[in-house]
Amino acid sequence: MSAADEAALPAREDAPVIGVLVSGQGSNLEAIFAAIARGELRARVGLVISSRPDAPALERAIRRGVATRVIVPKAYATRAEAGVALVAALRAAGCELVVLAGYKPILDAGVVRAFQWRILNVHPSLLPAFAGGMAPRPQAEALAAGVKISGCTVHFVTEAVDAGPILAQAAVPVRDDDTVDALAKRILAQEHRLLPWAIARVLAGHVRVDGRRVVGVDVETSGEQPESTVASHSGQ
Amino acid sequence: MSAADEAALPAREDAPVIGVLVSGQGSNLEAIFAAIARGELRARVGLVISSRPDAPALERAIRRGVATRVIVPKAYATRAEAGVALVAALRAAGCELVVLAGYKPILDAGVVRAFQWRILNVHPSLLPAFAGGMAPRPQAEALAAGVKISGCTVHFVTEAVDAGPILAQAAVPVRDDDTVDALAKRILAQEHRLLPWAIARVLAGHVRVDGRRVVGVDVETSGEQPESTVASHSGQ
Repeated sequence: MSAADEAALPAREDAPVIGVLVSGQGSNLEAIFAAIARGELRARVGLVISSRPDAPALERAIRRGVATRVIVPKAYATRAEAGVALVAALRAAGCELVVLAGYKPILDAGVVRAFQWRILNVHPSLLPAFAGGMAPRPQAEALAAGVKISGCTVHFVTEAVDAGPILAQAAVPVRDDDTVDALAKRILAQEHRLLPWAIARVLAGHVRVDGRRVVGVDVETSGEQPESTVASHSGQ
Repeated sequence: MSAADEAALPAREDAPVIGVLVSGQGSNLEAIFAAIARGELRARVGLVISSRPDAPALERAIRRGVATRVIVPKAYATRAEAGVALVAALRAAGCELVVLAGYKPILDAGVVRAFQWRILNVHPSLLPAFAGGMAPRPQAEALAAGVKISGCTVHFVTEAVDAGPILAQAAVPVRDDDTVDALAKRILAQEHRLLPWAIARVLAGHVRVDGRRVVGVDVETSGEQPESTVASHSGQ
């Protein structure tokens, strides 16, 4: 690592290594970098893997001197083979946690098993409502359904899509004059806040999975919640 | 109406008349009375109908000198006949809006048609999640599903159960150590706040239904939102 990178990313060499999977803009990847830089997330991004060679997220990683890989599932004979390549790359980089940050492909079951309770995803709705699909579909569905509150969910990835145990949720109001884009932006701002916080809790061992529930482990340092609030009702 | 009733209920004689349907404790009925007394809801409860002769809610109405009726659906040959009795009672009392406040029976379609866009229900979840069932089932389902945010919904009643256009929602955090009872109480406090506010908006003509969405009508006096906020994330 160069001296310049050290300045940009104050994470120590002994910080836990995470791998981030992306397909698009990478604004959640950027939020992870920012949380690390602020000292709120003790981690180092060891590898960014994109499912698309043209994902702008790759540029964000390269600018920070973070290793990148492009693994296009369709370039493999089977989804399982693409999964093997993913697992090999993540292991070679020493990743102990994998974060799906706007990653489009459905993850192969082999990857889920290789990193059991070690893969997080962020979804732009208050699950179980509006599960399935990538942005902006869940946001469009929420708007069409007429809900007055939506939000985002960080959950463990299991073999069932968008149905793993929930780590954290954030709520946002849906306004009368919302467009899909306006609602998506409001939700995305909460994703940027919630995802690094959830990663930090998992890396610190501050949660345990109890059936379908994720509960906090009672350690004194588990505080540090994000301090956002949300108006809890409909209306102008 | 006696002088004592007038003191307890400052609603003017020309205030819109509402009918409230109950089956249980009637705490939401009490919240309606309280909002009227505080001047936040310009309405008069003209009739309280219970689906059970032993509902404590009846006592609350009687204490305020409000007319009560007991209409037990199973006492009628068909649900439609029970519906006819309900509509007749509500019309005789001059009700222009009907509020289901913990009313257990599924409303007959004839009642829904007789009071189109004039029946409101409050449900203890953030619909469309955990639809169906009465308290404490939706709360128990939310807890079992491991969501970190739940809440309540006030919606128009249509022939599809818990699927009518949503007027208002309020969110509450679900805590790691929650019991169904603790969560239900936290949600109920929001119902008491949200339901009278939604009734007032409908009576004042401040909303219109646009497909599946309910949107505000742009009138200057439509403000007056309840001022609650909710921590928007998981934790502790």
